[in-house]
Amino acid sequence: MRIVITGGCGFLGRRVAIRLLEQGSGLGPVDELVLFDNAAPALPLPEDRRLRLITGDIADRDTVRRLIAPGTDAVFHLAAVVSGQAEADTDLGYRVNLDGTRAVLDACRALGQTDPKPPRLVFASSLAVYGGALPAAVGDDTALYPQTSYGTQKALGELLVNDYSRKGFVDGRALRLPTVVVRPGRPNRAASTFASSMIREPLAGQDAVCPVTPETVMALASPRRIVDGLVHALGLPGAAFGASRSLQLPGFSVAVGEMAAALRRAGGAAAAAHLSWQPDPLIQAIVSGWPRALATPRAEALGFGRDRDIDEVVRFFIEDDLPLQRQFAG
Amino acid sequence: MRIVITGGCGFLGRRVAIRLLEQGSGLGPVDELVLFDNAAPALPLPEDRRLRLITGDIADRDTVRRLIAPGTDAVFHLAAVVSGQAEADTDLGYRVNLDGTRAVLDACRALGQTDPKPPRLVFASSLAVYGGALPAAVGDDTALYPQTSYGTQKALGELLVNDYSRKGFVDGRALRLPTVVVRPGRPNRAASTFASSMIREPLAGQDAVCPVTPETVMALASPRRIVDGLVHALGLPGAAFGASRSLQLPGFSVAVGEMAAALRRAGGAAAAAHLSWQPDPLIQAIVSGWPRALATPRAEALGFGRDRDIDEVVRFFIEDDLPLQRQFAG
Repeated sequence: MRIVITGGCGFLGRRVAIRLLEQGSGLGPVDELVLFDNAAPALPLPEDRRLRLITGDIADRDTVRRLIAPGTDAVFHLAAVVSGQAEADTDLGYRVNLDGTRAVLDACRALGQTDPKPPRLVFASSLAVYGGALPAAVGDDTALYPQTSYGTQKALGELLVNDYSRKGFVDGRALRLPTVVVRPGRPNRAASTFASSMIREPLAGQDAVCPVTPETVMALASPRRIVDGLVHALGLPGAAFGASRSLQLPGFSVAVGEMAAALRRAGGAAAAAHLSWQPDPLIQAIVSGWPRALATPRAEALGFGRDRDIDEVVRFFIEDDLPLQRQFAG
Repeated sequence: MRIVITGGCGFLGRRVAIRLLEQGSGLGPVDELVLFDNAAPALPLPEDRRLRLITGDIADRDTVRRLIAPGTDAVFHLAAVVSGQAEADTDLGYRVNLDGTRAVLDACRALGQTDPKPPRLVFASSLAVYGGALPAAVGDDTALYPQTSYGTQKALGELLVNDYSRKGFVDGRALRLPTVVVRPGRPNRAASTFASSMIREPLAGQDAVCPVTPETVMALASPRRIVDGLVHALGLPGAAFGASRSLQLPGFSVAVGEMAAALRRAGGAAAAAHLSWQPDPLIQAIVSGWPRALATPRAEALGFGRDRDIDEVVRFFIEDDLPLQRQFAG
């Protein structure tokens, strides 16, 4: 198989790549794995002759057409401008998150000229598609009223994946990822970035600030669980998704105060002392607008799992990322 | 005021124009009214020095930027490729219905460089945004799973109108129009075209074929009511729409058999004899996937009305369109 991962040098893309190289795709042996991104990888990648890096602009249709070349069996489309940046730079957000997604979809569609079977496409959507007055738990039946350009662009991508799949141009699936915690690396411009920082930085011996109240409840999933979900989604037949290719992935709900308590349980008083609370009304308003709980019976029936609790998620971070985090954040 | 109507030579655009010229916009005197379309008008337009026609390509950004020139106060964006055509010609559908809408929105946004207040935009969406397993009555809270490219493109347009309005680039409102009956003119490539043909053609002395069963229930509105709704929407302040600029307009539900009965009541046995029934499984499947009833408490609270029944709607057609219909269909 030939598999392309856009945003392949991002933290999720890299992890999906490592998983595919180590454990296969579930669809057949991986012969070539192409990581596409707008910059060279900041984190180490495995030495593997199947791995290939391509740097370029996801919104450039010729580039993407050459990337998703004849013989491509599957695409993970993870490349995106994050929420804070898409909000601040409207043109950039639409260029990368909408034009880029269209370029990927049209490149997949163009494969139909030579390949009999449309490629599988796994598209990373987000909880940011929800907004407005939300029910107690959101899911596949919730009407989408995104409150950010990023959420809008993810909702646009879902609609496109559905239409192109219905027409047989691609065999797509759009997964609404819960907020991913604990992300390794440094803070980014996503409004959710504090949820990782408040655990990651203190465990690495650095200070972090929590801008929301301890009572704020978020719906989360660990990177391990998200990577499991992305790879699992690739292996499912398109028909399994039924009437819609959009799917809310499971997450677990936790109060931010409980996240701080888990930090203390894992890292002791020394780690806890690195965390301070400094309310930011803007961030509080954004995060309070996000869903607090996820209703995911369809995803569960399709075999997607959830993390047990925040302590397990913190343990995953310590096992998977803390050594590298100490090395790179130093 | 300077008002632009895209699709201004289409049957709704023309009628909105006549209404604005005769009765004003509700926002202020109309000084210039520009009808933009891809072809010259087929139907007569009033002699009015305020009226101006521009022909061009809605997806050409320079054209649209010149069209929505500084000083434009309001835009009705009605231009679209209809459902049958958008389904058959994917590229054309996306070009007109998505790229065209983006061109309109970006031209409105560009006005912000010179005009302090964003222009009002009325965008015509459609029941085609709904699909999949529908509740008994659909409305603003229904999750959108469009089953056609046209429906997808209308849903994309709604999301864009919402995001651009939230950011203050435009003061938009996206109205989900019920199926419009009785449309004047000739059949088009919309799957719903029979619903007008089955009344229009027999009353004009021509044969028509109904491709669905008499039990099929549809949610309809008359052109008069739709034009009322479009103009009423222009006059509402943006804040009236609350958290979402998307709004399901009211319609009335009627079985196709009852529509045939109304035809007989209005046109007698002579008209009824022109209607024959010839099931088309493809059209039946499409129409059966459409909502049978509309839940529109929000629109009603905002002052949008509905037609009383199919007899009233047939009477409107006879009063408003039948003379011209006889003349042009002859």
